[in-house]
Amino acid sequence: MAGRGVLPAHLARALAGQGRDVVLAEMAGHGADNPEGLPVIGYRVEKLGALFKALRAAGVQELVFAGAVARPKLDPASFDLKTMRLAPRILSAMKGGDDATLRAVLDIFEGEGFAIRAAHEVAPDLLPAPGVLTLAKPGTRDEKDAARAARIVKALAGADVGQGAVVAQGVALAVEALPGTDAMLAHVADVAGACRPDPAGARGVLFKGPKPGQDRRVDLPVIGPGTVAGAVRAGLSGIAIAAGGVMMLDRTRTLADADAAGLFIWVRSDGGVS
Amino acid sequence: MAGRGVLPAHLARALAGQGRDVVLAEMAGHGADNPEGLPVIGYRVEKLGALFKALRAAGVQELVFAGAVARPKLDPASFDLKTMRLAPRILSAMKGGDDATLRAVLDIFEGEGFAIRAAHEVAPDLLPAPGVLTLAKPGTRDEKDAARAARIVKALAGADVGQGAVVAQGVALAVEALPGTDAMLAHVADVAGACRPDPAGARGVLFKGPKPGQDRRVDLPVIGPGTVAGAVRAGLSGIAIAAGGVMMLDRTRTLADADAAGLFIWVRSDGGVS
Repeated sequence: MAGRGVLPAHLARALAGQGRDVVLAEMAGHGADNPEGLPVIGYRVEKLGALFKALRAAGVQELVFAGAVARPKLDPASFDLKTMRLAPRILSAMKGGDDATLRAVLDIFEGEGFAIRAAHEVAPDLLPAPGVLTLAKPGTRDEKDAARAARIVKALAGADVGQGAVVAQGVALAVEALPGTDAMLAHVADVAGACRPDPAGARGVLFKGPKPGQDRRVDLPVIGPGTVAGAVRAGLSGIAIAAGGVMMLDRTRTLADADAAGLFIWVRSDGGVS
Repeated sequence: MAGRGVLPAHLARALAGQGRDVVLAEMAGHGADNPEGLPVIGYRVEKLGALFKALRAAGVQELVFAGAVARPKLDPASFDLKTMRLAPRILSAMKGGDDATLRAVLDIFEGEGFAIRAAHEVAPDLLPAPGVLTLAKPGTRDEKDAARAARIVKALAGADVGQGAVVAQGVALAVEALPGTDAMLAHVADVAGACRPDPAGARGVLFKGPKPGQDRRVDLPVIGPGTVAGAVRAGLSGIAIAAGGVMMLDRTRTLADADAAGLFIWVRSDGGVS
C-alpha cells in the first residue's frame, strides 16, 4: 500500500531481495516511485470492493502500509457497495483524528483477511540500534536540547500532531505539523534559526520520535539523506531519533552525509547518550 | 518594563491618558518604542541593584511587564552584588523553562517591594468580550478547526511552547514556536498552506490562547493589525482567540482590516460561537 516518499521503493527492493512476490497498490492520482518495475494495482477509495478483489486475485496475503497518503477527497456518488458499507465506520473514525482514521482503515483491511505488517517488521535493518552513529557526538548542551525536544513531541502526541521538534539552547525553534520534517527544517533555515538566543551558542537538535499512541502496524517516522541535508541547511548540531521508533533510510549515504557535514546522528534511548 | 513590540507604547499611552506618571525601563540593547517621549531607565540584568535603585529613585511603585524580551546573554564578570545574590535563584529557575524563569523574575521584583500589574489590569479595554467581532462569522467547519487548534495549544502547554496553531480541514498546518505568530502565519502563507487536504475546502483558522499555566502577572498573548495581515496572507477564514486570555491591540484598525478582508475574529469561550 504505497504512498509518497522513498519508503515504498526501499521496501519493495528489500522484499524483492528476500525473494518475495511484491505488488504495489497505489491510490489513483498518487503514483508511487517504482524503480523495480513491480506490478501495480491502482485503486480508488470509492471502490474498496474492487481493491479487495484485485488484491486477492494477485494472491496478496500480507499488506505493508508505507509512505504518506493525502486524505483523499471522496466522491460519494461513485462509492461501490463495499465502500458504501464501510463509509459510516471511516467517517466516524475521522472525527477522532488521523490516528483514529488510520486505525479504522487498518482494522478494515484486517477484517478482509489481510495481515498487516509494519515496514520495520519486513525490513528490520531500517531500525538502527541505540547509540551515536556518526563521528560527531552530541555534547551536554545537545543532550539537553534533545531531551527538551523529546518532551515537546510527547506533549503533542495528545493532540495527534507531528512527530518532530527543533530545540536550540533550550528554546523551541520549531514544532512539526502536517507539512512534515523537511518543511520544518526549511523554516528553521529561513526564519526560525535567527531566534537562537545566543547566535554563537549551541546550534540545536532535531528530535524525531513516534507518537506514543501511534499504531505500530503502520510506518514509523523516517529520516534519511534528505533529513541530513535539511538539518545541515538549518545549521543544527545533529539529529536525535527515538530508539526503536524511527527508521533510517539509505543508512550508508545518510551517515556519510552526516559525517561529511560534521553532524551527529544519535539513536536516543530515554536518558543519556548510550 | 518595556520589551519588544507595540504593547509597551500602547500601555504608556493608556496610562498617560489615565493621568498616571509613567517611566519606561528598557534592557540595554533592547530599546522600546517611545512615541510619547516618556522618561526612560536603561538597565542591564548584570546590574539589578542599580535597576532597583533607579526605579525607587523615580518613585516607581507598580510595574507592568509588557512586550517580549530575548533571554539576555549574561556577563557574570560584571554582576553587581544584587545580581550575584539573585543569580542562583534565576539560574535554577531557568532549568524549568521560560515560564518558571519568568515566575522567578516576577517574584524577585515583588520581593523588592514593587507591585506587579498585568497589562490587561491597567488597560482592561485590551481584552475584548466574547463573541464574533466582525462582519464575517465562523461557519461550522471553522468552529471545528478552531476547536482542534485550541486542543493543540492546550497540549503544548505541558511542554512550555507557543500559544498558537493553525488548523484547516481538521489538520494542523502549523504550530507556533519561539519565532511567534507572525512567523507561523508567514510559514502557512509560503509553505504549509499548500498542504490543505482539499485546496477548495475550508481555509483554516488561527487560534491563539494563553498557556493554561501562564503567570497572569505578565502580558497575555496579543493580536492586532499585523496578525490580521498575516492571516490574510495565509489565506485563512479567520482568527479565534481565547476569551479573557488574548489582548487585542488597536482594536478599531484590527477590526476594520479584518472586515475589509472578509476575515472573522471570534473571541471564543470554550464551546460554540457566543
